[in-house]
Amino acid sequence: MKTLLPIARSDIHVHLTQEDLDSLFGKHYVLTYVRELTIPGNYACAETVEVVGPKGSIKGAVIVAPVRSYTQVEVSFTDAAILGLDPPLRESGDLEGSAGCILIGAEGRRIQLTKGVIAALRHIHMHPDDAKEFGVSNGQRVKIRVPGDRALVFENVIVRVSEEYRLEMHIDMDEGRAANIVDFQLVELIR
Amino acid sequence: MKTLLPIARSDIHVHLTQEDLDSLFGKHYVLTYVRELTIPGNYACAETVEVVGPKGSIKGAVIVAPVRSYTQVEVSFTDAAILGLDPPLRESGDLEGSAGCILIGAEGRRIQLTKGVIAALRHIHMHPDDAKEFGVSNGQRVKIRVPGDRALVFENVIVRVSEEYRLEMHIDMDEGRAANIVDFQLVELIR
Repeated sequence: MKTLLPIARSDIHVHLTQEDLDSLFGKHYVLTYVRELTIPGNYACAETVEVVGPKGSIKGAVIVAPVRSYTQVEVSFTDAAILGLDPPLRESGDLEGSAGCILIGAEGRRIQLTKGVIAALRHIHMHPDDAKEFGVSNGQRVKIRVPGDRALVFENVIVRVSEEYRLEMHIDMDEGRAANIVDFQLVELIR
Repeated sequence: MKTLLPIARSDIHVHLTQEDLDSLFGKHYVLTYVRELTIPGNYACAETVEVVGPKGSIKGAVIVAPVRSYTQVEVSFTDAAILGLDPPLRESGDLEGSAGCILIGAEGRRIQLTKGVIAALRHIHMHPDDAKEFGVSNGQRVKIRVPGDRALVFENVIVRVSEEYRLEMHIDMDEGRAANIVDFQLVELIR
């Protein structure tokens, strides 16, 4: 049974609906590809937005393409403290009752979100072939041990299995720094 | 055998020598008491300094009194990224080869440190009576489990025993946010 997989940190970023993208960058705006992410077809864009909360703002939040059916801002709790927001810890797309914010795009264009700001639950993306090799299934909670000078074991790590996924664990910057992680280092799955 | 103890987060703060305090606030400056810390006799002061690195600066770093025989700046890796510094992960007072920075005090007074910036190793302070009750000794490494929605187990947690200490685990803000900690909540020591 396989136990080792790569881990990577996600910094603050946003997913946009076509409508919100149009509002922020102008009608029929085409996003600029920068680099592929580990979800094939998803990519980080050159375009960024400023995220504004009641207490402060963060510039340079990367837009992740392609557009989605919902607009979502993924922040760490450190980001949330800067913004003055109290986001729930959620899976992607689970936005009911989450925090709102203002997004500022190009040339001062802005939108007000009434919800969409979350802290992402740490999770593992797996292809069904990976799930078989690791002996786990979609939705299962596992533990992940990170070695090193700040060694720790993350509990409550949710496994997400899809034909679209490539094997990788995702955490936010706070979690990455707490464990002194180097992106793409190997960590150990503990059932 | 006892297993539960309180945990608290430390934000960026500085310890100063009398000489550096004088340089930053003027000769014979007397610091202003704000609140007692869990090391009896140590207290947070109203006075703060600005910490300046090659990339950025952080205002409002609290001074912890009384003065010490060394000047030390304790930062998280998030702070270090803002400052543009690469601090080592160390125990308090172990400053050889650590990062330098500029500190700015009152009325623009400033000093250049050639070393002193560290990220603090997570640790537990215990009175000798606590050490007996927990069945651990000075310098021992233990694991600490934090419950909750971001449950995790910190490994490599160093136990420090002294007549001067009151029972408490100390982590930085990154570690606190990674585990979604509420200050003074109880965590579990695992030998």
